Amino acid sequence: MKRTIGFYFDYVSPYAYLASTQIRAIAERNGAEVEAVPVLFAAMLASTGSRGPAEIPVRRDYMVRDVIRLARFLEVPIAPPATHPFNPLAALRFTHAVEDAADRWRLIEALFRAAWVQGRRIDDPRVVAAIAMDEGLAADALAARATSDDVKTRLRGVTDAAIAQGAFGVPTMIVEGELFWGVDSLHLLERYLTGQDLPDPTELSRWRAIEPSAVRRVVG
Amino acid sequence: MKRTIGFYFDYVSPYAYLASTQIRAIAERNGAEVEAVPVLFAAMLASTGSRGPAEIPVRRDYMVRDVIRLARFLEVPIAPPATHPFNPLAALRFTHAVEDAADRWRLIEALFRAAWVQGRRIDDPRVVAAIAMDEGLAADALAARATSDDVKTRLRGVTDAAIAQGAFGVPTMIVEGELFWGVDSLHLLERYLTGQDLPDPTELSRWRAIEPSAVRRVVG
Repeated sequence: MKRTIGFYFDYVSPYAYLASTQIRAIAERNGAEVEAVPVLFAAMLASTGSRGPAEIPVRRDYMVRDVIRLARFLEVPIAPPATHPFNPLAALRFTHAVEDAADRWRLIEALFRAAWVQGRRIDDPRVVAAIAMDEGLAADALAARATSDDVKTRLRGVTDAAIAQGAFGVPTMIVEGELFWGVDSLHLLERYLTGQDLPDPTELSRWRAIEPSAVRRVVG
Repeated sequence: MKRTIGFYFDYVSPYAYLASTQIRAIAERNGAEVEAVPVLFAAMLASTGSRGPAEIPVRRDYMVRDVIRLARFLEVPIAPPATHPFNPLAALRFTHAVEDAADRWRLIEALFRAAWVQGRRIDDPRVVAAIAMDEGLAADALAARATSDDVKTRLRGVTDAAIAQGAFGVPTMIVEGELFWGVDSLHLLERYLTGQDLPDPTELSRWRAIEPSAVRRVVG
């Protein structure tokens, strides 16, 4: 049986876009398959009371330089989005409405490209539907499903399940319970898949036993 | 004239330790030199109202796995610290008291090794002095300087200057005003040093012009 890499992403993240351009090739090279799971990054941030990089000016400036550099390093296109942050809800729900894995992945790639290469506003449900139609999907039926309670509940459910597994940001890749966070962790994911760097439970429990000896008075 | 890589670090960060094992080789390969600048990570966090990874349980768990994986990938030793987070102030001030660059770097490596390989408590000024003595430094004179107002002011000054340049975490590498954050950015730093991925001011200004179209109600 093929190993499955859970790929947890939100269209709002340029790092998730960059990872989406790599993850299938990594899976193929290692005889694994990708299960693409759209999740709400905002809910992950809320779960730790954190802000995303785009919500802190100095981190936003760095993020721009970093994603441009990473895109060049990975040799994939990137361009400024129309707006950012934008509301990804319509795009995430629409993606969940697509059941077939191949169709879903084609839509994911098209939506990421629309947001992060073509500067299109995928926060607009009509734009999302138009992109789905261009990909040959039954856009009207999917648009109806995307706003159903079933899909809304599913998006929230998979997000909560990812958080319960330890995810706190996107992209997160999960294989056999092992988490890898961020485009920077893709090479570590690949080492894991090839049997290197397997976690040592004894070593991990020694680290977990560490106590703080200093606690900051003022925290975020 | 040699290019200078400013290496901004705090002993409290395992990622700064990992970067410290690589940065001099990167500089040497590219005809650059390293200026090691001890800074207060806590002041950087306070500047953006953020918490460090060790201050958020789910991120702390991830950090442990991540630093173990990175250490194996980089083929450098790592072991659980005696306590974490710990107060790095004594070690940072002591390091600032060392004027000679070669002496300073030797002490930095010894202190990082003490904290992140040998499990020694470098939050204790006596341990810091003992390590300095083992490195052949004039530990008594340095210990006296380390608690002087001059050194206290200098640590705060270089930290504020790094923040003013856009640093928000450690390790941060700054070359010619370009920032690289984290051990994961070392390969991007090296590409920059070899003349790849030079920032394009027109492209950056297009990204800077982006406005948000969604703002979260609740933020950290």
